[in-house]
Amino acid sequence: MAQAQRRRNGNIGTGSECKEKELLLLLRERGRSEGQGQGHQQQRWLNRTTSLNNNAKATMATVLAMAMAMLLLFYSSSTSTRITTPSTTGTADEALSISDADADAVINLDHGDPTMFEPFWKNAGDKATVIIPGWHTMSYFSDTSNLCWFLEPDFANQVRRLHRIVGNAVTHAHHIIVGVGSTQLIHALLFALSATDTRHPVSVVSAAPFYSMYPGITDFLKSGLFRWAGDATSFKVNGSSSFIEIVCSPNNPDGTLRRAVLSTEAGKLVHDLAYYWPQYTPMRGPADEDIMLFTVSKATGHAGTRIGWALVRDADIASRMVKFIEMNSIGVSKDSQVRAARILQVISDGYELPDPDSTTSFFHFSRRLLADRWQRLRWAVEESERFSLPQFSSEFCEFTKEHTETYPAFAWLRCDDESIEDCEGFFKSMKVLTRSGRHFGAGSEYIRISMLDRARNFDLFVERIASLGLG
Amino acid sequence: MAQAQRRRNGNIGTGSECKEKELLLLLRERGRSEGQGQGHQQQRWLNRTTSLNNNAKATMATVLAMAMAMLLLFYSSSTSTRITTPSTTGTADEALSISDADADAVINLDHGDPTMFEPFWKNAGDKATVIIPGWHTMSYFSDTSNLCWFLEPDFANQVRRLHRIVGNAVTHAHHIIVGVGSTQLIHALLFALSATDTRHPVSVVSAAPFYSMYPGITDFLKSGLFRWAGDATSFKVNGSSSFIEIVCSPNNPDGTLRRAVLSTEAGKLVHDLAYYWPQYTPMRGPADEDIMLFTVSKATGHAGTRIGWALVRDADIASRMVKFIEMNSIGVSKDSQVRAARILQVISDGYELPDPDSTTSFFHFSRRLLADRWQRLRWAVEESERFSLPQFSSEFCEFTKEHTETYPAFAWLRCDDESIEDCEGFFKSMKVLTRSGRHFGAGSEYIRISMLDRARNFDLFVERIASLGLG
Repeated sequence: MAQAQRRRNGNIGTGSECKEKELLLLLRERGRSEGQGQGHQQQRWLNRTTSLNNNAKATMATVLAMAMAMLLLFYSSSTSTRITTPSTTGTADEALSISDADADAVINLDHGDPTMFEPFWKNAGDKATVIIPGWHTMSYFSDTSNLCWFLEPDFANQVRRLHRIVGNAVTHAHHIIVGVGSTQLIHALLFALSATDTRHPVSVVSAAPFYSMYPGITDFLKSGLFRWAGDATSFKVNGSSSFIEIVCSPNNPDGTLRRAVLSTEAGKLVHDLAYYWPQYTPMRGPADEDIMLFTVSKATGHAGTRIGWALVRDADIASRMVKFIEMNSIGVSKDSQVRAARILQVISDGYELPDPDSTTSFFHFSRRLLADRWQRLRWAVEESERFSLPQFSSEFCEFTKEHTETYPAFAWLRCDDESIEDCEGFFKSMKVLTRSGRHFGAGSEYIRISMLDRARNFDLFVERIASLGLG
Repeated sequence: MAQAQRRRNGNIGTGSECKEKELLLLLRERGRSEGQGQGHQQQRWLNRTTSLNNNAKATMATVLAMAMAMLLLFYSSSTSTRITTPSTTGTADEALSISDADADAVINLDHGDPTMFEPFWKNAGDKATVIIPGWHTMSYFSDTSNLCWFLEPDFANQVRRLHRIVGNAVTHAHHIIVGVGSTQLIHALLFALSATDTRHPVSVVSAAPFYSMYPGITDFLKSGLFRWAGDATSFKVNGSSSFIEIVCSPNNPDGTLRRAVLSTEAGKLVHDLAYYWPQYTPMRGPADEDIMLFTVSKATGHAGTRIGWALVRDADIASRMVKFIEMNSIGVSKDSQVRAARILQVISDGYELPDPDSTTSFFHFSRRLLADRWQRLRWAVEESERFSLPQFSSEFCEFTKEHTETYPAFAWLRCDDESIEDCEGFFKSMKVLTRSGRHFGAGSEYIRISMLDRARNFDLFVERIASLGLG
């Protein structure tokens, strides 16, 4: 069965989707993310081809020739950018030692750290910069007339505006509840949806493979209000007991679109739509669920800002979520909301300008990067002849108005090589940190791999996988 | 007993502490906070004296004459300020209608919203402004080499620097754990200090009157790890069961200095030192407890930024707190930490400049405002002949190097008038929202009143109390 999942998708540089524009953008991303130092994570332009074998070299040589031509074209035509170009003045010895360092580097793709999006925001320049004077946003309160009194009105406006432009969720009938990332909002929902006057905690379920944090979030405080009950597909609905089903769609870890597994009056549904954005999956129209969760972390790449939002139809549930956040953290950082509002505004402005282009169209830019990464990963996986990846059919995207592929934020990789018992351990031996399928209610033959890391880490990772098939 | 607590402290304008400099600063605060609109909370310069009766008018007239002279002096000599002066061009009719609005205004002193400090930060100008480009702080991670991987290094440096300058806590032997306000850190500590392998939840106690949120924080999720056990003074230590005592010093709500009530090997202590800063109380030297909590909300007035920090000696406890924050919110906003770092830096810089003055010395500025407010509140309470306030002795402050008074962030007011059964309800009938002593483990004859609100609200509040004694 696993072998049946494996299909050839063509090498990089020859596939139908490897358009010139995508490669150009990729090169811009690579040059910038690696030329711009950011504190302790400073990176440099590296000579990485020396670690490839001859076959890979041949492919890479073709790509590199195209790349250099486009790079020259880009740098000669670009005048508006504020980003400095990477240094290429290193000696041969330096290049060699850096390449050795690459070979030893531990690549952490365990977390979904969305630093891949940094190049877009570097290019966005001043309009994405937020300025907060010392005396602003000092009060606990943002808007005492709002049910969610700690919600910054401008952030709420930008959330509604972006959903309207993208068409991924209705908002007019929903309350917006802001949280410290969508993680705090899941906690808030477990509290809001459970009864405080019962002796029996409500069961919390999600269909496997499920996001690895759901069990821990539910159980780590040993709450008497709710408890983790595992895979929704094996949960037996009992007429007298309630449940909460978390539906993650597109699903973390495997990128599939999901609907609720359980459907009964006794249960409550939470739709975690963190990845329902055009860079990851075709838009099938606005979601209109009772409870929907989003986060800037996966929408825009600003994980460090720790801002998520829930769209909640029922005022009582929304009020109980607010109560949770009062007790948990007395509201949510106003500075972060101000910043998130600015970030969302830049994205929306990019699509409402008269002549949007690839440098202002965030979702188009991000889709192209992900498309390139998925193409390269699929190629490397094919070359290795040991692994397989999920396949997705092309669908019409109502946002881009064209048929597009699915490019999940995570690769849900299966080890088909039966000599490998623990896929996570196998990758760890290659100094690539991933997350075992065991954490997601699946087997140890699976791993989840972040597709959202910086270009250098992703490149090294793909090279290491590709090298496996060439031994 | 309550009558014995009542002592006369002299009217405003005649007390030994009512120095010209203090009044000057007060006037600057008043003019700015009311002339500067901030979103929906825009305020205006108001004619409030018309609602006072003749006695109060006489006192106020003296103050006002001094005030106007100093105001002219200030505005004519000040050239560096960027703050616009309040509008005084309204007609007599406008003034009358605004005054009527004042009489009807609901004054919310329930929360300790520290907006009182806004004038200092307005005056601080550009140096307190934080600028965050769109591509900064996108990663979840701040410093992967630190036990607290989401702690921004610059914020940690500024925390240690400010503690060193103020001398209120040792930091060299402690880990710094940043949290979404100190509220999240209390949750993190309850988790970190409780055993996960026991059937019996650990008892959480604090000596009454205790901070009203401690019981709710502990119990609202019905955790099997910890439970609220009430007033520490009536808690019976049992050899086989553990406890956590939260020691708040200076104490919220009553401003008293506290030490642990329980002292046994079986218990663990959490020192909540949110108010151990020079504007509230004389500094008696650096605290050196195993676990100490602080928050920018009460240190600098930036409640909306939601940043607190814990100083924790034990690495295992610190690690478990980090684990909690990972599960609760996957870290803490980096934007807020960047901003908090800037704010702390401005305060420290103010004391390390060659010639600090009242506009750069945050704690001196804030102390004078609080001193004035306490003096006026004590005068109004005396005039009313119905209430009493705690008394504090003057002590030597090792930070200011002089004997100073205690000026708590909250007034813990007692209704001595036996005809008033519910003090909170009585103030509510005057359209002043406070928090009943019942929430603090005390009686309904007590209320907690925030001393940290904007000048206009505090002024109206004092006028309403003063008017009670004149009926």
